[in-house]
Amino acid sequence: MTQVAWMMGSDSDYPKLEPGFKTLKELGVSVVGRVLSAHRTPEQAREFVQKSEAEGVKVFICAAGMAAHLAGAVAAHSSRPVIGIPVASGALNGLDALLSTAQMPPGVPVATVGIDGAVNAAVLAAQIIGTGDESLAKKVVEWRAGQTAKVLEKDKRLQEKLKG
Amino acid sequence: MTQVAWMMGSDSDYPKLEPGFKTLKELGVSVVGRVLSAHRTPEQAREFVQKSEAEGVKVFICAAGMAAHLAGAVAAHSSRPVIGIPVASGALNGLDALLSTAQMPPGVPVATVGIDGAVNAAVLAAQIIGTGDESLAKKVVEWRAGQTAKVLEKDKRLQEKLKG
Amino acid sequence: MTQVAWMMGSDSDYPKLEPGFKTLKELGVSVVGRVLSAHRTPEQAREFVQKSEAEGVKVFICAAGMAAHLAGAVAAHSSRPVIGIPVASGALNGLDALLSTAQMPPGVPVATVGIDGAVNAAVLAAQIIGTGDESLAKKVVEWRAGQTAKVLEKDKRLQEKLKG
Amino acid sequence: MTQVAWMMGSDSDYPKLEPGFKTLKELGVSVVGRVLSAHRTPEQAREFVQKSEAEGVKVFICAAGMAAHLAGAVAAHSSRPVIGIPVASGALNGLDALLSTAQMPPGVPVATVGIDGAVNAAVLAAQIIGTGDESLAKKVVEWRAGQTAKVLEKDKRLQEKLKG
Amino acid sequence: MTQVAWMMGSDSDYPKLEPGFKTLKELGVSVVGRVLSAHRTPEQAREFVQKSEAEGVKVFICAAGMAAHLAGAVAAHSSRPVIGIPVASGALNGLDALLSTAQMPPGVPVATVGIDGAVNAAVLAAQIIGTGDESLAKKVVEWRAGQTAKVLEKDKRLQEKLKG
Amino acid sequence: MTQVAWMMGSDSDYPKLEPGFKTLKELGVSVVGRVLSAHRTPEQAREFVQKSEAEGVKVFICAAGMAAHLAGAVAAHSSRPVIGIPVASGALNGLDALLSTAQMPPGVPVATVGIDGAVNAAVLAAQIIGTGDESLAKKVVEWRAGQTAKVLEKDKRLQEKLKG
Amino acid sequence: MTQVAWMMGSDSDYPKLEPGFKTLKELGVSVVGRVLSAHRTPEQAREFVQKSEAEGVKVFICAAGMAAHLAGAVAAHSSRPVIGIPVASGALNGLDALLSTAQMPPGVPVATVGIDGAVNAAVLAAQIIGTGDESLAKKVVEWRAGQTAKVLEKDKRLQEKLKG
Amino acid sequence: MTQVAWMMGSDSDYPKLEPGFKTLKELGVSVVGRVLSAHRTPEQAREFVQKSEAEGVKVFICAAGMAAHLAGAVAAHSSRPVIGIPVASGALNGLDALLSTAQMPPGVPVATVGIDGAVNAAVLAAQIIGTGDESLAKKVVEWRAGQTAKVLEKDKRLQEKLKG
Repeated sequence: MTQVAWMMGSDSDYPKLEPGFKTLKELGVSVVGRVLSAHRTPEQAREFVQKSEAEGVKVFICAAGMAAHLAGAVAAHSSRPVIGIPVASGALNGLDALLSTAQMPPGVPVATVGIDGAVNAAVLAAQIIGTGDESLAKKVVEWRAGQTAKVLEKDKRLQEKLKG
Repeated sequence: MTQVAWMMGSDSDYPKLEPGFKTLKELGVSVVGRVLSAHRTPEQAREFVQKSEAEGVKVFICAAGMAAHLAGAVAAHSSRPVIGIPVASGALNGLDALLSTAQMPPGVPVATVGIDGAVNAAVLAAQIIGTGDESLAKKVVEWRAGQTAKVLEKDKRLQEKLKG
Repeated sequence: MTQVAWMMGSDSDYPKLEPGFKTLKELGVSVVGRVLSAHRTPEQAREFVQKSEAEGVKVFICAAGMAAHLAGAVAAHSSRPVIGIPVASGALNGLDALLSTAQMPPGVPVATVGIDGAVNAAVLAAQIIGTGDESLAKKVVEWRAGQTAKVLEKDKRLQEKLKG
Repeated sequence: MTQVAWMMGSDSDYPKLEPGFKTLKELGVSVVGRVLSAHRTPEQAREFVQKSEAEGVKVFICAAGMAAHLAGAVAAHSSRPVIGIPVASGALNGLDALLSTAQMPPGVPVATVGIDGAVNAAVLAAQIIGTGDESLAKKVVEWRAGQTAKVLEKDKRLQEKLKG
Repeated sequence: MTQVAWMMGSDSDYPKLEPGFKTLKELGVSVVGRVLSAHRTPEQAREFVQKSEAEGVKVFICAAGMAAHLAGAVAAHSSRPVIGIPVASGALNGLDALLSTAQMPPGVPVATVGIDGAVNAAVLAAQIIGTGDESLAKKVVEWRAGQTAKVLEKDKRLQEKLKG
Repeated sequence: MTQVAWMMGSDSDYPKLEPGFKTLKELGVSVVGRVLSAHRTPEQAREFVQKSEAEGVKVFICAAGMAAHLAGAVAAHSSRPVIGIPVASGALNGLDALLSTAQMPPGVPVATVGIDGAVNAAVLAAQIIGTGDESLAKKVVEWRAGQTAKVLEKDKRLQEKLKG
Repeated sequence: MTQVAWMMGSDSDYPKLEPGFKTLKELGVSVVGRVLSAHRTPEQAREFVQKSEAEGVKVFICAAGMAAHLAGAVAAHSSRPVIGIPVASGALNGLDALLSTAQMPPGVPVATVGIDGAVNAAVLAAQIIGTGDESLAKKVVEWRAGQTAKVLEKDKRLQEKLKG
Repeated sequence: MTQVAWMMGSDSDYPKLEPGFKTLKELGVSVVGRVLSAHRTPEQAREFVQKSEAEGVKVFICAAGMAAHLAGAVAAHSSRPVIGIPVASGALNGLDALLSTAQMPPGVPVATVGIDGAVNAAVLAAQIIGTGDESLAKKVVEWRAGQTAKVLEKDKRLQEKLKG
């Protein structure tokens, strides 16, 4: 059963998102990825959302740039948590997408992560599902311990370099 | 027959929009006004757009604040020209709405006017319909001549004041 | 058992947040509210987070203005989902808080809602807990249907007014 | 008969605009392109606008960067719809041009598209003329269906890639 | 003979500009004030500029808000120095006007002062004319000495207050 | 006799400024160029300004990036017109320099041109000196006619290209 | 002996700064307050800085709005630490002052606190002097403990209110 | 004994910071460099701060990008002066980090330098320690005289080039 439905407004966003897909895999969270646009394929997007929700998807992740309505459009059609990733593209480099994603009207939230924040979207999705799945919640704790260890390793290398 | 369908995301926006409704009236353009939200009433919004287009509406005007997806959502469901009015509301006072309205992806334009630009949305709608209706095009010319006259009148008063 | 721990950096933020507390109540979600600062009471904040997590809190909500580190500080000490509300305060009116809340480094997400978005934080918390609690998920659907009904009611009133 | 007059403030903008000219061609809309500046050739710009309007041009498209007054200057001299394309150039990369193009005073609208939005300017021009020309309106519907198909094709490829 | 022609896009800007008119008077610089709009009265604005230049006006001052094209439009029609005052009005409170006024293309400068900087526009006009009129240049020096004296007087009062 | 004193905060800005020096030469305006910093060589800057003014310099041009205090510091020490060029450098790419240059307090104006606007600074300096030197004022008119001719030439080439 | 010299560009800033003066008093740090402008009284400002440094002042605090050059000007004339307070004033409400204060060139730092951050400037000054004065460093620790206690008191009140 | 503890959120920031480490060395200030993150290694960061303060560290320097909470987190755990360097990274290129670093709540200051301002952080640290160490204060004066000499040398070269 798919736990996360990850939509993106353009396939050109995929390389930026790949580390997030990889993170979900490391955390053992199943995901389906789709290119669907709030503006160019609104019907298909809506149908996919309704079908996904009916089939048990727990969380939606939506990545889009510029006017970045995708996450909001999904939130309009589902009551599942929707995570929005503002993508840096075009002349304003993501400031437009950040505001378009975060500034939702009362009643229809989008859980916005930072610009191009694919890894954080993945971790957040796992944390969310983990509120009802303790074994996943533990995996997140372990995964984050791994991140901590990496920082400490880099710290060690810097100290050696500065002493050297 | 209704020529313009004017949607707004919140009825609290109406006082700011009223001068635009008045301008359409002065120009003899028929209009229907609706409170419909891209996020809270997506189905009703879509149905209204499709029904309006089928009944011959020529232009949509959409006013919304903050994430301001309404104009884009209408543009996703209609091939008629869609005019977007970014409304100043919330902490960012319309900068968010301006970017969310204007920065649409290629293929799905929104004709964006300035923040809170209800009168300009009305004039633009009349200009658009006027491309296929010369008598309306002439009314716009006359209406704008009236605006020019008002500026010249104010100019006269200032000159008198400064001389006084 | 408390499901949501809601922290705020200053008690002066509470009036803005109250509608969110009310929303949680409507949705039947239990919540504890605390004034704790990432900078002025870091130890107490950390202890509260660790104790809350141990006692089974599912979601943290953190509201803070200006540099707005509270949500990030909580996310550093918990693997539960952390929702950040950027509060409009000071000269930059929330733009600073929005960026400080959303732009987290990879691995430590904050689920950011819009500026002063207390109601959306509450709804999102319920949606998150609802991924593991179907009866709550249904309540969210009903609550949102109520919001839709309110918009449609306003729509009706506007149409009457315009016809009047 | 020329339907669209497309002006640009600098010939260096042309490569960015070319996809828009191509879109007009695909839609069967006739266009003339000119390099004319609101500041360096104001007389020639004004004469061209007045002559074009007299000869039956339906829509003006104006592309300019930085202070970006061209669309406004054309709107001052014509009552036809004027579409403004803010061009990303100089240190502020189009934010200046977006504000200079959109924030017009009441009575003189510019239909602003996104930064560097040449394709959207072309589609909008066709939609506008299509309000009085049903065969063109249909072409826009078909053209947009082609865009939808392209997204669905990309969606298919991504799904295959992710399964692979 | 009039030395300075001061144009404003709207008579509602006059109260903000009045201190600048007063400063010109203190400096003995003759000025004519006009309400003329780049967009609503473009012909009258152009004619006024050309007539003023022919009659010996040395400097133009132009105050406008939002898209704020007035100074640029005057600079397009005159080779005299043009001072632009961005006026804070509308939702963006002058940031739009500042960019629209300052970011002119190469060859057509506008000497931009700060937002709502009417006094500085007046002083700058006097400094400019003073490059060819030594007695005016001396008056500017004296006027500025008076400003310095006022600051020193305030400094004295603060020191007394703090000691008190 | 030197007419223009052109100061820059860093010699690394010179390549951006060179077109302005060339423009002054084309207009027959004499100029001296100096690297002097408001912060690193404040005494030398002040002495140079006072000596230049005493020797008859008519206009100062100051180019600086980031906090960009140079023009303001010169304006504090001279009553001659000071033109400020905000230079795009560092992470904010000139927005900081634009605000630091333009937003001067009442009584001490800086005539701000666009970001990296060296040519416009040169033209403005010539226009300013031209208010007291009719032969220079005429040269500016001719120089600008040359700019107009270049645009018209480019316009011709684009029309040929589009027909081709 | 005066430990801190606190300058402000305008006496109208004083009410915003008063809590900082009060904080210095609570911490037992001696301070002199002056109204001196980088642009209107540059000589007096410079002389005051040099005299203060010679007399043993340890830290300068400079508060200024808009172009906000005061802190930078002081830093140009002293090697003592200079704390800059960007003041919210004028149309841009402190964003201009923040950038003008913080973005100093290499070699001439200004220790910038938040917009209108008078209390933080005072605390920072005490921390700085405390690096060479342990009894003052201890007072800062105590003062901050008092701040912590106030937050905890507010926390208690909120908890009671929510239970009530 | 270490005088300065310099922390950075990511080892990838080190190349930008190296000139600051070099400046500290030139000034004879001892420094230890660490990679520690407010979010990924909060415990280690806190322990390092408390241990450093106990061992006599006088000043903390913290460099971080994006949400940039490191300096604030250190300031929460120490009463020593904390210098914050906003690092330009990610889509917003340091504007987010500048606001996150500077806009601290009352009572917990961070002495913020410009974006990527490593050299200024080093000079400021030396100035701070110099308030209690006259020989270091003198070294700063000499170091800055060296900077002045470099500008004057560049000035000389530019003058020769322009004459050549």
